[in-house]
Amino acid sequence: YYKDQIIKPRANWKIVKESPSTATVDADTGLAIILGPKAMKIAIQKAKKVGVGIVTMRNAGHSGAIGHHALIAAKEDMLGMCMTTGGLRVVPTFSAEPLLGTNPIAVAAPTNNKPTFLFDAATCSVAGNKVRLAQRSGKKLMPGWVSDENGVPIMEEYKVEDHIDIPPLLPLGGTREIGSHKGYGLSLVNEIMCSLMSGGIPSMLEGHEATNKHLFAAYDISAFTDLNEFKKNMDDMLSKLVDSKPAPGFNEVLYPGLPEFKDEN
Amino acid sequence: YYKDQIIKPRANWKIVKESPSTATVDADTGLAIILGPKAMKIAIQKAKKVGVGIVTMRNAGHSGAIGHHALIAAKEDMLGMCMTTGGLRVVPTFSAEPLLGTNPIAVAAPTNNKPTFLFDAATCSVAGNKVRLAQRSGKKLMPGWVSDENGVPIMEEYKVEDHIDIPPLLPLGGTREIGSHKGYGLSLVNEIMCSLMSGGIPSMLEGHEATNKHLFAAYDISAFTDLNEFKKNMDDMLSKLVDSKPAPGFNEVLYPGLPEFKDEN
Repeated sequence: YYKDQIIKPRANWKIVKESPSTATVDADTGLAIILGPKAMKIAIQKAKKVGVGIVTMRNAGHSGAIGHHALIAAKEDMLGMCMTTGGLRVVPTFSAEPLLGTNPIAVAAPTNNKPTFLFDAATCSVAGNKVRLAQRSGKKLMPGWVSDENGVPIMEEYKVEDHIDIPPLLPLGGTREIGSHKGYGLSLVNEIMCSLMSGGIPSMLEGHEATNKHLFAAYDISAFTDLNEFKKNMDDMLSKLVDSKPAPGFNEVLYPGLPEFKDEN
Repeated sequence: YYKDQIIKPRANWKIVKESPSTATVDADTGLAIILGPKAMKIAIQKAKKVGVGIVTMRNAGHSGAIGHHALIAAKEDMLGMCMTTGGLRVVPTFSAEPLLGTNPIAVAAPTNNKPTFLFDAATCSVAGNKVRLAQRSGKKLMPGWVSDENGVPIMEEYKVEDHIDIPPLLPLGGTREIGSHKGYGLSLVNEIMCSLMSGGIPSMLEGHEATNKHLFAAYDISAFTDLNEFKKNMDDMLSKLVDSKPAPGFNEVLYPGLPEFKDEN
């Protein structure tokens, strides 16, 4: 991408609009992996002054794992949030055309003693990478992961050869009966908050060369409530979850961020 | 509830903490159906001044359909958001204990000519009311809606007699393979943003008499970008969805808010 100058290594990114709690950034096709932390720092500075800071970014490259951006705020004792849109991989409920990106949402919240809460998930039922991995290792895709070329959910185990492109992904929920309209709606919320709130064009109108758009938010917990009480409640809530009775066949109940913490420690 | 004085008809609700973009309300067990619009109006006033306004509310009663609160902001040309938590109906992924509420999220965004975008959905796979309706009408529950008493997802059609209480609900996604950990994570985000950010106690620690907690947010679109351009992009995006090719067996592609608009017109 750098070579083709689709993504600029030294982008001339700039704030195009600003208010006490908001900023809108034109990324000049710079990579959000690099610009994300800068945007989150602007959000944090604003949150310190007025309680909440929200920065939207249009015309950007990929953001990497958006949980990392959300974590920057959590480390400053704030609630951090990051959302991203881009790409055309996911079919809306009832539609035959893939018009949405995998559109992930990440939220990070600080704790006292427990590993940091970190939710980071696409609004489709399975990540594209996981489908690609199944294809490469010769495994079958699970029911509810993808649709056929007409948008019909495939509800049995399904083998896709390695050389075939990833089939259209289903929204979180899989089928209408189990709630795919909710995953589809959440995905559209991402499109609105990232693309339209940054002055960008929805990916579905931009086409296959669509840029990525992002949102970075920081909520200063101490503007809302007592920070120590918040962290104590986080610890107590996460302990309650981890100590709850597991369903048969499972040894423990996890919470978002705990598996990643265990992997790293 | 009024009679038992669990919910006060004339609650002495008050703002307990405030910053330029935030407010935290103690509802004194007042009904959020009535207090919600007041909270959203505070959020809107703050958004007009500093770009974003976020109001959390603890110690409250039920909010009714939270989409209505989000719509108040959309009518002021803002992006409106409302989240709620309360009750213990939903089992976390891998857990045998229902520790979460149905925890809905609503987002409303203004348009120019198209019916207003309104997403309003629980973070579990099916609303409790829908399960109750199926029970009363003698219909079977769908696979992926509920778990057995040990938290094991029931993945076949399942008949529950009318006199039996609603079984534990599964998070959006149904099973781990189709993404229930995402619905579970979203539900926890609600708990953090509504309960902990309002200085309240998570419902799972408060127990079965848990109060409801809420979040009301307004984002002033004109602080982020040109309002007319935003509305034009909303119309164009929603048209693209509605005009996309439907999957076999469907006549049209819908977007959140369109079915409700059609019902009312």
